[in-house]
Amino acid sequence: MRLRNKPWAKEKISAYPQYVVPNPEQYKGKWHELFGNHHPIHIEIGTGKGQFITGMAKENPEINYIGIELYESVIVSALDKLIENDLPNLRLLNVNAKDLASFFENGEVERIYLNFSDPWPKKRHEKRRLTHHSFLELYEQILISEGEIHFKTDNQGLFEYSLMSFSQYGLLLTYVSLDLHHSDFSGNMMTEYEEKFAAKGNRIYRCEVKYRAK
Amino acid sequence: MRLRNKPWAKEKISAYPQYVVPNPEQYKGKWHELFGNHHPIHIEIGTGKGQFITGMAKENPEINYIGIELYESVIVSALDKLIENDLPNLRLLNVNAKDLASFFENGEVERIYLNFSDPWPKKRHEKRRLTHHSFLELYEQILISEGEIHFKTDNQGLFEYSLMSFSQYGLLLTYVSLDLHHSDFSGNMMTEYEEKFAAKGNRIYRCEVKYRAK
Ligand SMILES: C[S@@+](CC[C@H](N)C(=O)[O-])C[C@H]1O[C@@H](n2cnc3c(N)ncnc32)[C@H](O)[C@@H]1O
Ligand SMILES: C[S@@+](CC[C@H](N)C(=O)[O-])C[C@H]1O[C@@H](n2cnc3c(N)ncnc32)[C@H](O)[C@@H]1O
Repeated sequence: MRLRNKPWAKEKISAYPQYVVPNPEQYKGKWHELFGNHHPIHIEIGTGKGQFITGMAKENPEINYIGIELYESVIVSALDKLIENDLPNLRLLNVNAKDLASFFENGEVERIYLNFSDPWPKKRHEKRRLTHHSFLELYEQILISEGEIHFKTDNQGLFEYSLMSFSQYGLLLTYVSLDLHHSDFSGNMMTEYEEKFAAKGNRIYRCEVKYRAK
Repeated sequence: MRLRNKPWAKEKISAYPQYVVPNPEQYKGKWHELFGNHHPIHIEIGTGKGQFITGMAKENPEINYIGIELYESVIVSALDKLIENDLPNLRLLNVNAKDLASFFENGEVERIYLNFSDPWPKKRHEKRRLTHHSFLELYEQILISEGEIHFKTDNQGLFEYSLMSFSQYGLLLTYVSLDLHHSDFSGNMMTEYEEKFAAKGNRIYRCEVKYRAK
């Protein structure tokens, strides 16, 4: 994600604590209180400009969504969409995914979305890939029993790596498409990157995996 | 595989019992005696016209290969290649793969190759796919502990199905390429179908999976 210098971003984020939750540690184990219901919680890691998670939250009012994005300069665009739509079932966190266990209690999350995650193609950066073993371990901690990861990307190398990483971790592959946009999968919610790369003619890969019963 | 009427095929096959093994049941548990050594045994299911298995046998004299093909009219082409090359480490079986357990003892085979297997795209023909659960069970029986399947195809639907079938069976995915001919995989041995479909511009998918320790 190209970072434009946006000095006003930090300020804008602070101005909307009802959307971008400050100090999310305080809600660990208590997200249901914040949302005011016991609907399932789905999170997206690396939300970017928020088109996917905003769209999902609009379509599925019975699911609580939390979008996680590291960069202020990027998450402000997701914030703009949330301001415009004022969705009670969507919150944003401006945090690093490696700290997930500080924000979520064991078994608090039902599903994790990874969309067009940074590929980190160099072998020496393998540990930074969001489908690396260490992240799968972290996800398992915060997910319910038989919790799911839904993953899509146009990056062939990252998809190949992730299929192997999932398998080696013991995850069950329950769905796979090697060409999502020419498949019969219905109800696909496009992300910003997906629109951009699909327009270039790139194939979109998608899979769903499930953790074993705890 | 289009079947031409070749009435002479049966006769030709019978004329070369040293290459196309008649009554292979008699060698169950005794293939090492037939080969005259204790080298590992790799089999290919659906050998077709035999380019792959003949090439592999030439390149790897320390492996014993067995090519299995159902149709006489097709296996004769593989027989021709074997007559021409007279490879001591290659035999052909003109049998149906569903009877594998009649020809091989538990743990007698080290690796199974599936190349461009018939896709059987209709859901009601799922059981005929060579990567269906029932075949994976059969393969496990004749394979050594941690035995492998190496699979390639240009058929997207069959590859997607197979990745899920392997995962659901508990197999470990140790290699995957979603575009073999543009990957850094070295030493690929082409099959007849592979040459044909690659020339049409189709992508070739390839994976390796491994059974858990027995
Ligand atoms: C390639 S972009 C994709 C954005 C969006 N998902 C899409 O498909 O349009 C990846 C995003 O993940 C974010 N990201 C990467 N690592 C992260 C981490 N450890 N925690 C939170 N966000 C992260 C990046 O800042 C970037 O915005
Ligand atoms: C599509 S062709 C591929 C041939 C070759 N592997 C290649 O890549 O060129 C599939 C072959 O598998 C054979 N076959 C299909 N089912 C089989 C079975 N149950 N047992 C033995 N051979 C089978 C077919 O007769 C056919 O020759």
